[in-house]
Amino acid sequence: MTEKYVIGLDYGTDSARAVIVNTLTGAELASSVKYYPRWGQGKYCNPDTNQYRQHPQDYIDVLEASVKEALAKCPEGTAAKIAGISFDTTGSTPVFTDEAGTPLSLLPEFAENPNAMFVLWKDHTAIKEAAEINALAGKWDINYVDYEGGIYSSEWFWAKSLHVLRADAAVRAKAYSIVEHCDWMPALITGASKASEIKRGRCSAGHKAMWLEKWGGLPAEDFLTALDPMLGGFRERLYRDTYTSDVAAGNLSEEWASRLGLSTDVVVGVGAFDCHMGAVGAGITPHTFVRVIGTSTCDIMVSSYEEMGDKLIRGICGQVDGSVIPGYVGLEAGQSGFGDIYAWFKKVLEFPIKNIIGASELIDAETKEKLIQEACDKIIPELSKEAEKIPASESTILATDWMNGRRTPDANQLLKGTITGLTLGSTAPRIFRALVEATAFGSKAIVERMRNEGVQIDSVIGIGGIALKSPFVMQTMSDVLNMPIKVCKTDQACALGAAMFAATAAGIYPKVEDAVQAMNSGFAFEYFPNAENAKIYEHIYEYYVKVGQFTEKELFC
Amino acid sequence: MTEKYVIGLDYGTDSARAVIVNTLTGAELASSVKYYPRWGQGKYCNPDTNQYRQHPQDYIDVLEASVKEALAKCPEGTAAKIAGISFDTTGSTPVFTDEAGTPLSLLPEFAENPNAMFVLWKDHTAIKEAAEINALAGKWDINYVDYEGGIYSSEWFWAKSLHVLRADAAVRAKAYSIVEHCDWMPALITGASKASEIKRGRCSAGHKAMWLEKWGGLPAEDFLTALDPMLGGFRERLYRDTYTSDVAAGNLSEEWASRLGLSTDVVVGVGAFDCHMGAVGAGITPHTFVRVIGTSTCDIMVSSYEEMGDKLIRGICGQVDGSVIPGYVGLEAGQSGFGDIYAWFKKVLEFPIKNIIGASELIDAETKEKLIQEACDKIIPELSKEAEKIPASESTILATDWMNGRRTPDANQLLKGTITGLTLGSTAPRIFRALVEATAFGSKAIVERMRNEGVQIDSVIGIGGIALKSPFVMQTMSDVLNMPIKVCKTDQACALGAAMFAATAAGIYPKVEDAVQAMNSGFAFEYFPNAENAKIYEHIYEYYVKVGQFTEKELFC
Repeated sequence: MTEKYVIGLDYGTDSARAVIVNTLTGAELASSVKYYPRWGQGKYCNPDTNQYRQHPQDYIDVLEASVKEALAKCPEGTAAKIAGISFDTTGSTPVFTDEAGTPLSLLPEFAENPNAMFVLWKDHTAIKEAAEINALAGKWDINYVDYEGGIYSSEWFWAKSLHVLRADAAVRAKAYSIVEHCDWMPALITGASKASEIKRGRCSAGHKAMWLEKWGGLPAEDFLTALDPMLGGFRERLYRDTYTSDVAAGNLSEEWASRLGLSTDVVVGVGAFDCHMGAVGAGITPHTFVRVIGTSTCDIMVSSYEEMGDKLIRGICGQVDGSVIPGYVGLEAGQSGFGDIYAWFKKVLEFPIKNIIGASELIDAETKEKLIQEACDKIIPELSKEAEKIPASESTILATDWMNGRRTPDANQLLKGTITGLTLGSTAPRIFRALVEATAFGSKAIVERMRNEGVQIDSVIGIGGIALKSPFVMQTMSDVLNMPIKVCKTDQACALGAAMFAATAAGIYPKVEDAVQAMNSGFAFEYFPNAENAKIYEHIYEYYVKVGQFTEKELFC
Repeated sequence: MTEKYVIGLDYGTDSARAVIVNTLTGAELASSVKYYPRWGQGKYCNPDTNQYRQHPQDYIDVLEASVKEALAKCPEGTAAKIAGISFDTTGSTPVFTDEAGTPLSLLPEFAENPNAMFVLWKDHTAIKEAAEINALAGKWDINYVDYEGGIYSSEWFWAKSLHVLRADAAVRAKAYSIVEHCDWMPALITGASKASEIKRGRCSAGHKAMWLEKWGGLPAEDFLTALDPMLGGFRERLYRDTYTSDVAAGNLSEEWASRLGLSTDVVVGVGAFDCHMGAVGAGITPHTFVRVIGTSTCDIMVSSYEEMGDKLIRGICGQVDGSVIPGYVGLEAGQSGFGDIYAWFKKVLEFPIKNIIGASELIDAETKEKLIQEACDKIIPELSKEAEKIPASESTILATDWMNGRRTPDANQLLKGTITGLTLGSTAPRIFRALVEATAFGSKAIVERMRNEGVQIDSVIGIGGIALKSPFVMQTMSDVLNMPIKVCKTDQACALGAAMFAATAAGIYPKVEDAVQAMNSGFAFEYFPNAENAKIYEHIYEYYVKVGQFTEKELFC
C-alpha cells in the first residue's frame, strides 16, 4: 500500500487550518492556520445587533494560503501523494447564491453587502423568524421541528434565510439558491458551475434545514410559503437529496488543482459541520458522549437504528441519520456558554486592572501595559489554582450556566445566569469554582435529558481547548457527571476528522470507521470521578435544577 | 444662661469617640477617637466560629484617653463647664459580673478568658440558644418574643448569656449578674459598687432582654429555668425597673472625676444603644424613618402611644416604650448587610490585584505596594462613577441583599445573597449597580413591612458614613423608596445624640426633644426621587420579592 496523504480543512469562527495527515497512521505531517482577513478587521459585523457575517473571499484567501503553507512544510513530493481533501466548517452558516451557485457577495454589485455574505452560526438577527417557524410548525400537520429537538433556533438555515430576504430587496431580487458554508467549499474547489449541481451534506441539511428522507426532503412548499411568500420557489431550486461525508463531492477542478499545486485526481469529500467531524476525529462510537469544549460546547453522539427506533429526542439540536457516521443516527446538543462564562468572570475581575491601574500615574506606560497584560493573562490560571484547593463539600455557592442563554436541553436564548448562596465570605476563587461547577451541571443536564429520552451514555470523550488545557474543569466535570472522561491527544480533532472522511471519500478506506481505527490520535489522559465528590454534586445538582426552573418560569419568560 | 458643655461618648465596634458639645447650639467644640487596643490585635476573637469578644479594659483605656484628648483640644476652663456625660454603645453586648457589678474579666483569674468578657453584638456563637428561646416562647402562655418582632436573635442578651453559661463552668460558678455595655459604662464612672445598684437602660432591656413593664419586667423565672436550670436566680439578681436615657444614672465618682479631670458635679446619664441615640442626634420625630447607614443599617422610628395602640409589629427588632424618646414607642429594624455588600464585591475584584500584581516581578516592592493601595482604594469610587451612568431602565441584573443574612423583616441568619439576570455582557459596574439596588430593595422591604403593620412613614433621614459619602447609593435609595431622604450635617450623630441626652439628664433641658430642638446639626442635603426611576424600581422590586421568597423557601431553609 502506497503512502497516501489527505488534507483536512477545518474552518472555525476566526480562522481555518489545513492539516496534512498520513492515511496509514493518522500522523500529522504539517499544518497551517490562517486568519480571515476581513473578519479580523471586524467588517460586516455589528455586535450590538448580534449581526455576524463573513465574506466568501475570506474563505478563499485562507484556503489557498493555508494549503500552500502546509504543503511547503512537507518533504518534496508530498503534493503528489495527496489523495483527498475534506472540509468541516461552522454552521448553520448559509449564504444566498445566484444560479451558478456563486455567493452573491462575490458579484461586484454585492461585494460589500453583509446580506449577500455568509450568515455566521452565531448571528442572532433572526430571532423573530425562528419564533415564527416554531409557531407555524406547532400548528402544521407535519411538525417539521420534530427532528430538530422540537425547537427551531434563530441560528439556523431557514430563520436566517427568511430574515435576510425580508431585510434586503436587492438580495431578494437576485437570490436563486442558498448554500451552507460546508457545502460551498467542496462545490468551489470541484468547480460546480450551477447551484443545482452542489452536493448537499446530510449534516447541515438534517440538523439545520429540517431535511428528512421520509418527508421527501425539505419542508413542503406550502409550509415555507405560509411562513412567508418570499420563500416561494426556493425548495424546488435547493435540493431533494443529501449526502453523507464518506461520499465524494467530486474531483479537484483544474483551476483549483493549479491554485493549490495539487492534481485533479484529488477527491473532494462532502462537507459537514466542525463538531460532527470532530467527533469522528475523536473516535466516536455508540454510547459515547463526545464534547467539543471551548467557549461553548457542541456535543455529539451516534446511535444505532435499533436503539433509536422511532424515538424523538426532545430539546436537543437535532437527530439526523448519517450526520456523523453513515449508518447511524447523529445526535447534536450543546451548551451556549462554557469557557465564555469563565471569560466573562475574568472580564469582570479585569475592571479595576484596566480602569484604575490603566489610569495610574505611578508607573510608566510601557511597564503598565506589560503589567496589565500579565495580570489579565494570569486571572484564570490563578483562579483555577485557588478554586481547586476548595473541597467540594464547601461548594455552597450555586450558579446556573445560562449567561449566554441555553442551547440544550430545550433551547432558550432568553434565559440568563444566576449566582446564589453568596455570603460576605464568598471569594473570587469560590465564585469561580461555582461557575466551573455550573458549566458541569449544564453538561449533566444534557446527559440526563439524553438518558431520560432513552439514549444510553457510558463514557465521555473531550476535545477542544478546555479539554486539553483545564484539568480542574475536566475533573469537576467528571465528578459531576460521575463518569470517566477521556481527552484526545490531538488538538486538531476536527481537522483530523475531516482527514478521515477525505481518506474514505478517496476510497482508501471502505468505511469511515476503518479510517477512525487507523488514523485516530489516541488519548492524552483520562479523568476518573471522585466518588465522594460525585455524591456531593448529585445533591447540589438538585438545587441547580430548582434554581433553573424558578428563573426560567418566573424571571426570564 | 451660662455656657455649658456636655460630653457624648459613642462606643462603636472598633473605637470610641468623645465629642464635647455646646448645649446651647449643639456645636462641636472638640472630639477624639481612640481605637480599642486589645481588639485591634484580634484578641479573644475567632472569626471562624463568629466569636467576637471585647475586654472591658479596652473600654476603660479609650474612655480616659479620648476624654482627656478632647478636653485638651478645648480652651482652658472648659472642663469646669462640663455638665453631663452620656454613653451610647453597640448592643446587645452583655458581660457577666460578680456581685460588685465588675465584669469578670477585670478579675485577675478571668483576665484572659473570652467568656468573662463582653460578647460583642456581632458574636454569633449563640445560634442554638436563640433557637431554643424561640421554640420555648412559642409554646409558653406568654410569648416573650412578641415585642422583639416575634423572633429572638442569637445576637441578643439571653441567648448569649445562656451560651456562655453552658460553655464555661468557671464563669458559671462566679457569675452573679449580667450587664450590657451601655449600662456598665455609666455604672463604672458613677462608682456603682454593687450589681444591684446599676441603673438599667430601657433601650437594651426592652429590645434585647425581653423586658416589658406589663410582664413585671424580665421573663418569668420558670420560663428562664425551663430554658435551662443554669439561668436560675439571675432574674432576681438582675433588675425589675429600667430607665430612659433622659434620667441620670448618678454623678461622676471621685475616682473618675479625678481620672478624667472633671468635677464630681458632672451628671452621668443612663446609657442606650448607638443607633437609638443616633436617631435622636439626627432629630427623629414620629413618621420619620431614621437610618444609620454603614456596613449594615440600623433603622429607628418612634411612634406615639395613640398610633401604636396594642399593635405588635411582626418581624422587626423590637418595639419598646421609651427606648428612643421617653413617651414614645421606639421601633428598631435594620439590614444585616449594606456597605458590607459593596465591600464584599470590592474584595472579589481585588483578587487579581492582590494575588497577581502582588506577586509580579515587573515593578519594585515599594511601587507595587502603592499601586495596589491606589487600585484598591479606587474600586468603589470607580464602580460608583460608572454604575451611575447606567440608566435604571437597563437594570436587568437583579440581586438580593442577604449576603450577611437578613435582619428585618423577619430575622433569618441562614439566608444568603443572589445575583441573577447575568449575561456575558454583565460588567463589573452593572453588577455593582445591581448590588446598590439590592440594598435599596432591602430598605424598601423594611418600609413596606412597617407600613403593612400600620406604621406611617412619611420621610427618611440618613446618617452614618454611606449617607454622607455616597450620593449614588442615596439617590438610588430615594428612587427605590420613592421618598425624599435628608442627610444630617453631622458625621457624629450618635455622639451628638448622647450629648443631647447628657444635657437632658443634667437638667439643662426638661425634655430630650428640647435638646434636639436646640442642638441638632441640621441637614447637609436632601435627595428627591426621580419619578421615572421610581416607577421602574417598583416593577423590579416585585422580582426582588419573588427571588427572595424562592431562595428563602427552596434553598436556605
